[in-house]
Amino acid sequence: MSFSQLQSRIDALGSPIVVGLDPTEALIPPHLLLSHSFNADTVAQFCCEIIDAVSDIVPAVKPQSAFFERLGIDGVRALYYISEYAHSRGLYVILDAKRGDIGSTAQAYADAYLGAYAPFDALTVNGYLGSDGILPFFTTARTYGKGVFVLVKTSNPSSGELQDLDVGGRTVYEAVADIISDISGGDTLGAVVGATYPETLESLRRRLGDAMFLIPGYGAQGGGAGDVARGFDTSGRSAIVNSSRAILGAWQSSNADSRDFAATARLETLRMRDELRNALGL
Amino acid sequence: MSFSQLQSRIDALGSPIVVGLDPTEALIPPHLLLSHSFNADTVAQFCCEIIDAVSDIVPAVKPQSAFFERLGIDGVRALYYISEYAHSRGLYVILDAKRGDIGSTAQAYADAYLGAYAPFDALTVNGYLGSDGILPFFTTARTYGKGVFVLVKTSNPSSGELQDLDVGGRTVYEAVADIISDISGGDTLGAVVGATYPETLESLRRRLGDAMFLIPGYGAQGGGAGDVARGFDTSGRSAIVNSSRAILGAWQSSNADSRDFAATARLETLRMRDELRNALGL
Repeated sequence: MSFSQLQSRIDALGSPIVVGLDPTEALIPPHLLLSHSFNADTVAQFCCEIIDAVSDIVPAVKPQSAFFERLGIDGVRALYYISEYAHSRGLYVILDAKRGDIGSTAQAYADAYLGAYAPFDALTVNGYLGSDGILPFFTTARTYGKGVFVLVKTSNPSSGELQDLDVGGRTVYEAVADIISDISGGDTLGAVVGATYPETLESLRRRLGDAMFLIPGYGAQGGGAGDVARGFDTSGRSAIVNSSRAILGAWQSSNADSRDFAATARLETLRMRDELRNALGL
Repeated sequence: MSFSQLQSRIDALGSPIVVGLDPTEALIPPHLLLSHSFNADTVAQFCCEIIDAVSDIVPAVKPQSAFFERLGIDGVRALYYISEYAHSRGLYVILDAKRGDIGSTAQAYADAYLGAYAPFDALTVNGYLGSDGILPFFTTARTYGKGVFVLVKTSNPSSGELQDLDVGGRTVYEAVADIISDISGGDTLGAVVGATYPETLESLRRRLGDAMFLIPGYGAQGGGAGDVARGFDTSGRSAIVNSSRAILGAWQSSNADSRDFAATARLETLRMRDELRNALGL
């Protein structure tokens, strides 16, 4: 599915939200741990129940590869399983794996995660190695109608140590933005820009035209609806906001029974949707 | 195994070489493809035969994760299998996966690849996200006596697009070097510095003291023995030079029978060893 198809789904649902699937042990309700202990099966069951709970109110999910890879081969199998499952529910799947390498190695990652049979529609990519490391992802995405989100300005506190450095009238993250702007093609250009730096969201929106923004850092990391709104284009489009912990762990911060974790996740997603609709005037 | 233990092995063998395990289809000899087609079993067999052929003349191997991930779950299983196999042959195993993320996600990658039971001794890491993304790798490496190679200056042609930019008296890659110098601890500090930029190797050696350098770009990418020598310390230590294609594909550039690919790989490794010994005065 391409970025323009993703946008159509966002428009149809009025919901520019991607639910981040970051299944850490701390977010799994006790009844799932009691029956299974913490393993790849637990993680798969947890993710599938979350997917079922939100698949009619959000267009996309974003599995975080690290939390599956940590569980070894069974974890990787669970990642593929829940991604196929999300597809079967009509969801757009962004694999958050932050891959990056050079030449034929970058091509191997692109084949793995953006190839014809990969159960993913988009991939996050780290561009530190320069354009010959990024280009294979864009060309493969173009071939298969998929998308690439390159890390431009990340949401973490120390992102500025490198990304904000001035390189002669622009920052390092602006240099990354300029590189991907030059080499992407068709409908493949996406950028990761953190909600925690709202002024940067606005300036990068101007710099990157109608690129699709993936905005992490909303909620648990501190970015509010007014902040993320600055990353959207003037018609309130071209961006999707991620929430992981606030949705997956909603059962922990409410009075709900932890067995209702999926229903509670749905309520939090609806709350976030309405908050974003208000901020965007949708 | 720690970097100082790796250095002891390098010293004992007089061989600062890591054999890169990059099993692309083009490097697999036809008789393996005929019997198996190109799949994870072929790749595992190819890598194990290479490991057998070099395990008494080099201290380390470096599987390139991308080429295993491309083969899906079976490929990931092959990666773990050949890494365990390399350990059983006494080799130090550097997983070249260029991971990088923030906070708990970086910790998940560190647990996956540097944890107590991970069959890897060191991991390559991409530091674009800043110190809070890098630190979990160093702390986990310290706990388990392993090492971290952060990408500082990569060997590819477009590495300079970002890495060479001037950020007020130093380059971006020097800024990365300074960050990892500050936050690493104990015997965990490693850096990836390409053979294709010999002056940079020399200046980064001065900047990073006795950090362990992983030097790609020798041979097929154009770096010679005199070039890589500039990355070693004054006693000819603290660095290890990678060769992948030149060793794995040696059977293609010789008159040997392709069935002798492993023996031919061994000969090329010995040739490289002698060339490095000469350049380093070992």
